[in-house]
Amino acid sequence: MNIDCPVPYSEDDVVQLGHGAGGRLTAELLDRLVLPALGRRPDGPLEDAALLPGGGELVVSTDSFVVSPLTFPGGDIGSLAVHGTVNDLAMRGALPLALTLAVIAEEGLPLAELRSVLDSAGKAAQQADVPVITGDTKVVGRGAADRLFLNTTGIGRRVPGLAPSSARARAGDAVLLSGPIGLHGTAVLSTREGLGFETDIASDTRPLHRLVRALAPFGDAVHSLRDPTRGGLAASLNEIARDAGVGVEIAESALPVPSAVAAACDLLGLDPLIVANEGCFVAFVAPDIADAALLALRAHPEGAQAVRIGHCTTAHAARVELRTLLGARRVVDMPSGEQLPRIC
Amino acid sequence: MNIDCPVPYSEDDVVQLGHGAGGRLTAELLDRLVLPALGRRPDGPLEDAALLPGGGELVVSTDSFVVSPLTFPGGDIGSLAVHGTVNDLAMRGALPLALTLAVIAEEGLPLAELRSVLDSAGKAAQQADVPVITGDTKVVGRGAADRLFLNTTGIGRRVPGLAPSSARARAGDAVLLSGPIGLHGTAVLSTREGLGFETDIASDTRPLHRLVRALAPFGDAVHSLRDPTRGGLAASLNEIARDAGVGVEIAESALPVPSAVAAACDLLGLDPLIVANEGCFVAFVAPDIADAALLALRAHPEGAQAVRIGHCTTAHAARVELRTLLGARRVVDMPSGEQLPRIC
Repeated sequence: MNIDCPVPYSEDDVVQLGHGAGGRLTAELLDRLVLPALGRRPDGPLEDAALLPGGGELVVSTDSFVVSPLTFPGGDIGSLAVHGTVNDLAMRGALPLALTLAVIAEEGLPLAELRSVLDSAGKAAQQADVPVITGDTKVVGRGAADRLFLNTTGIGRRVPGLAPSSARARAGDAVLLSGPIGLHGTAVLSTREGLGFETDIASDTRPLHRLVRALAPFGDAVHSLRDPTRGGLAASLNEIARDAGVGVEIAESALPVPSAVAAACDLLGLDPLIVANEGCFVAFVAPDIADAALLALRAHPEGAQAVRIGHCTTAHAARVELRTLLGARRVVDMPSGEQLPRIC
Repeated sequence: MNIDCPVPYSEDDVVQLGHGAGGRLTAELLDRLVLPALGRRPDGPLEDAALLPGGGELVVSTDSFVVSPLTFPGGDIGSLAVHGTVNDLAMRGALPLALTLAVIAEEGLPLAELRSVLDSAGKAAQQADVPVITGDTKVVGRGAADRLFLNTTGIGRRVPGLAPSSARARAGDAVLLSGPIGLHGTAVLSTREGLGFETDIASDTRPLHRLVRALAPFGDAVHSLRDPTRGGLAASLNEIARDAGVGVEIAESALPVPSAVAAACDLLGLDPLIVANEGCFVAFVAPDIADAALLALRAHPEGAQAVRIGHCTTAHAARVELRTLLGARRVVDMPSGEQLPRIC
């Protein structure tokens, strides 16, 4: 893995917001501190979910949710916590078998609000057809947490034939995107900052496992799947380019950016490529099945707007390039990640 | 389940510290709000870990850790997070297959401190012979969390023949305790409050799965296991008495309370029965194997001080009674739980 800054952390270094934003700083923290501490080699692909050792086709994923505000157009921390983990499992080709749900609540949080987001989590789990089988509830004093944090861990079973991995993308692959980008991050930011886009933009938070299952007929030709949450599409494409050692080329003209998202990004000075999503994924598939896979995605409501956005190449290994509307090329960097704290 | 206060929560009710303390308020919150929201029947036994649906002998447990301070005599939040989840799996008779670890860090936390507790988690996982297979890192702004919270979720496989459940205790069972009580809670409280007991008391935090495995030869005669963490021995015994519908009778003379713990509890006005532990468990076993089970526990260093503390009876179903040193009887209530926040 390429780290721009190879010096070890000094004794004075502290946790920064960007360490949690899913971009370059997060990757650095994982490589230089977290993974070595936990005895993991930092050079393997970092997937959305891990295979359970000795567990056959079982995969496991965990995520904590610290989104602020707790409720936003299109969802809340409860539905987000269910969808986020269901989707991380789906990105390994797995359908969810069970979820756990752990609550950290701040003293003084209205129980009505806790009930509302847990009801929402319960409904989301029911709609995703996955039981919440165990949980945990902790309370900290006033000021020791910001209202409510959730953690969900999911266990899933891989759909027979599907074995996507970020390391399996290869030159020639078509890059598909299952839906429009930028909705979740702009919906949360707009609500938090009171920007007034809340009527036009709603989070795309939704479960994606059924859409992934629609790719099952293509089996091994489905090489890599990733949902562009923190760090947005730019982070997901860079992670796959890095893990697989391929170049990724995408066309700006093909990117589905809703006009309200574009307007919000203009106002906020954000690139839609780095804004978090919670209801779409990229699929790297063999070129000969790309059209059929696209049709399979479009046959589902949550994939109705699926498009092909690019392809993989040997030309610029481990790098992502964008062909702009004017025909120029620019490198799409891994976002450093400070811009969008607490988006999920 | 008996709830003293059957009225629904009002719109003005808020989260209290006691809701997270593992006692009566926690049980109430689960029954009246959390479990209904998640579509779970509130009348079944609440175990330390759940069986994975369709997962054969796999069990799953999740816990968030918010202990303050992060480091205390005998351990830190990292080792505690590993031991806590390994032990919850063990209480269902399972050995750990894999852990997940999710971090919520406050902006400004020294990276050296993060590294220290993650190193500790890594070492604890290695010593428990369980890999950390996936994780998550979130950062919140200054003041939005108190330094560091962790979540661990564990997946384990039941030891063949062991199927303990809090509902399986029955009249006549012997109640065994694997080690002394009160060490963890008093160590954390003493450190937090600067009481000066830190030289005499260290947390008992340790993995208990090998000690549980020592009970495997007794198979089905091992009815119930529980580690008395939040809410202490009083909560664990009450939970089993309630879930199994049996009376539990314990002898004060048999309770192993280290003298330093007794002194700290005197000073703090605490009953050692409600102080959290992280390195012992109670086992409800058939009377005919009790002596042999005790010998099996004592053969391991972590069970060297195992003792029989009481038995189950039909006399006072769902109630726990203590025979005092003076021969009197007193009811051991489920602690309400406000007294010891952020102990784990």
